[in-house]
Amino acid sequence: MRDVAIIGVGLTKFGERYESDLRSLISEAGIAAIEDANISNKDIDMLYVGNMASGRLTEQEHIGALASDTLGLSNPPSLKVENACASGGTALRQAYLAVAGGSSDFAMALGVEKMTDVSTSEATTGLGGAGDKTWELDEGITFPGLYALMARRHMHDYGTTEEQLAAVAVKNHDNAYLNKYAHFHKRITIDEVMKSKMIADPLKLYDCSPISDGAAAAILVPLDIAKKYNDTPILIAGSGQASDTLRLADRDSITGIKAARIASKKAYEQARISPSDVNVAEVHDCFTIAEIMAMEDLGFYKKGEAAKAIENGETKLNGKISVNTSGGLKGCGHPVGATGIKQAAEIVWQLRGEAGERQVTRADIGLTHNVGGSGSTAVVNIYKRVD
Amino acid sequence: MRDVAIIGVGLTKFGERYESDLRSLISEAGIAAIEDANISNKDIDMLYVGNMASGRLTEQEHIGALASDTLGLSNPPSLKVENACASGGTALRQAYLAVAGGSSDFAMALGVEKMTDVSTSEATTGLGGAGDKTWELDEGITFPGLYALMARRHMHDYGTTEEQLAAVAVKNHDNAYLNKYAHFHKRITIDEVMKSKMIADPLKLYDCSPISDGAAAAILVPLDIAKKYNDTPILIAGSGQASDTLRLADRDSITGIKAARIASKKAYEQARISPSDVNVAEVHDCFTIAEIMAMEDLGFYKKGEAAKAIENGETKLNGKISVNTSGGLKGCGHPVGATGIKQAAEIVWQLRGEAGERQVTRADIGLTHNVGGSGSTAVVNIYKRVD
Repeated sequence: MRDVAIIGVGLTKFGERYESDLRSLISEAGIAAIEDANISNKDIDMLYVGNMASGRLTEQEHIGALASDTLGLSNPPSLKVENACASGGTALRQAYLAVAGGSSDFAMALGVEKMTDVSTSEATTGLGGAGDKTWELDEGITFPGLYALMARRHMHDYGTTEEQLAAVAVKNHDNAYLNKYAHFHKRITIDEVMKSKMIADPLKLYDCSPISDGAAAAILVPLDIAKKYNDTPILIAGSGQASDTLRLADRDSITGIKAARIASKKAYEQARISPSDVNVAEVHDCFTIAEIMAMEDLGFYKKGEAAKAIENGETKLNGKISVNTSGGLKGCGHPVGATGIKQAAEIVWQLRGEAGERQVTRADIGLTHNVGGSGSTAVVNIYKRVD
Repeated sequence: MRDVAIIGVGLTKFGERYESDLRSLISEAGIAAIEDANISNKDIDMLYVGNMASGRLTEQEHIGALASDTLGLSNPPSLKVENACASGGTALRQAYLAVAGGSSDFAMALGVEKMTDVSTSEATTGLGGAGDKTWELDEGITFPGLYALMARRHMHDYGTTEEQLAAVAVKNHDNAYLNKYAHFHKRITIDEVMKSKMIADPLKLYDCSPISDGAAAAILVPLDIAKKYNDTPILIAGSGQASDTLRLADRDSITGIKAARIASKKAYEQARISPSDVNVAEVHDCFTIAEIMAMEDLGFYKKGEAAKAIENGETKLNGKISVNTSGGLKGCGHPVGATGIKQAAEIVWQLRGEAGERQVTRADIGLTHNVGGSGSTAVVNIYKRVD
């Protein structure tokens, strides 16, 4: 299989984009990525669109064709890819496999979600479809409730505290404050998190990522032609994906995500690196507990040791490892289908040295970690700068 | 890229499957395919699930993981693929590309749709999401209405008659009568079609495919290991996919589907055959006019000549070319995400000589044609028996 590089990325501002529909979000991110890659829209020969719930939230399915049409592409194969909150990461990985496997030379991965045209309650119910409708949602648990169960058990087993959960939110809001694309530009304190409204005990409002609109796009090409378009192509050095049971209760353990461990093991092996080689990582902090579990599942910390490390500031900008420099899902926002590709865009900018005020000093190797549902899907990609 | 063969296929009975939910349909088709392939469920290393509207129709998203979980797979990468009514064909083609490209050795493509748990009106509205929500559906046209426009223009330009449309339905019900998996086991007459309720002039009830539940699955492996599992592996000799505008009104012509012409040209070139080499074809007859357009787009007949040929019986079982031996969408049923993979299953059975009462005498080369929306997506695959 061929080596694959990202030569262009683009984002929309994330947030409540009342003025923008699916088409305008797709245009904004898609054109930005095409311009960043120095290619023509007519060059794109394959389009993967990551999106979770356009059918339920906007009554529009078939958004692969919609996106191809909107961007004026030359009738390429296009399709929507759905894996709940990992839809974007899955679309990116499919684009990677298409280029690596030889069926595409200019693949676009585009993620989009338009969530604020319905009520928060309708959006939350829609997101519940990421879990098990029959054996979880219909039994009365909400999607935040699933992560609350994981948090409670993590607290029970490892002594993790609510203040440590809050530390994740504070750090990610600090990072988002420096990111013009972020949903939130508001620094918060541990005290504010602790006093925010209870959503699903122990998770409070500020432990939860928001409902956002937004889109993100990336252009992938074979490495051997990448330098024709871009001086600093970013190699996808490793990629792994795994699935697990749909229902949380069917897992051996709920204090970590097995699919993420399997996916990251494959990605590390392919990239021939170990977790300690990673300088900058975007991880799936749909709820604060998820970032703590991610740090452990990805091997950055031993089981039960991540929460204290985060509290101690080891994962801040230019800490031992810089985590969620974009602000993560918590601070940058979580337009579901876009998130996995936004993660890649942030790593590309960090590895290029283009991350502005949030640029980390050393960024040679980056990683993205995108999770679907309560951990039924995980996608992990590893990125290297090619000088 | 590697040569790829199908070594196993499985179907559920299509129809109003009130007793079965998504999980049971997935089990039924998935296990049948695994058994037909003589492999273990643990062998599958990649799972593509074709589905259009589980979110809207059953409130369950994330059915890649649901299917992997249901079939007891070994944590493989899994995802849902959506391309409206071409979701199944797209999933099959993605599985083909994964094996051809070297990222999978045992890929499963599974298509499923559960449509009868909501009212016919809700299901039809959900299917409308295949078209352009903003510029078609919200303006008042229904999805049958889009194909009615195509039919009217075809009648105007080429003299196609309502009786010729009806001939498609009669033929496909005749074929479905011989297929134990088909939704309908009822032969109909031209007169009955003509007298059936008007849906969208000139399309009557019997010009329309039904709303069905069902699932279909196929197992794809590299050709060089296929004979270890199956004496008659079926080679995917060519595969093409293309997109077009989402909105019908944005096309140059509405008497044919450009995406199908682009996709089939690619597939024919890859397979190094011409249309006249095809013995048996499953084409996308969501409405009777669609089969007439397919015959022309695929090059089986010159523009404007297919309707008369169908009326003359040239596409019946063991005609000049045997078309929709399964009964097609019209007679076999149309559980949207399953359809494209059911088409492949029918061709596999025909090429193996296992199609029972509907077996065609000569079946060396087969073709499937799966369309999304009013033609915004088309997937065409070509199959050959490997002796």
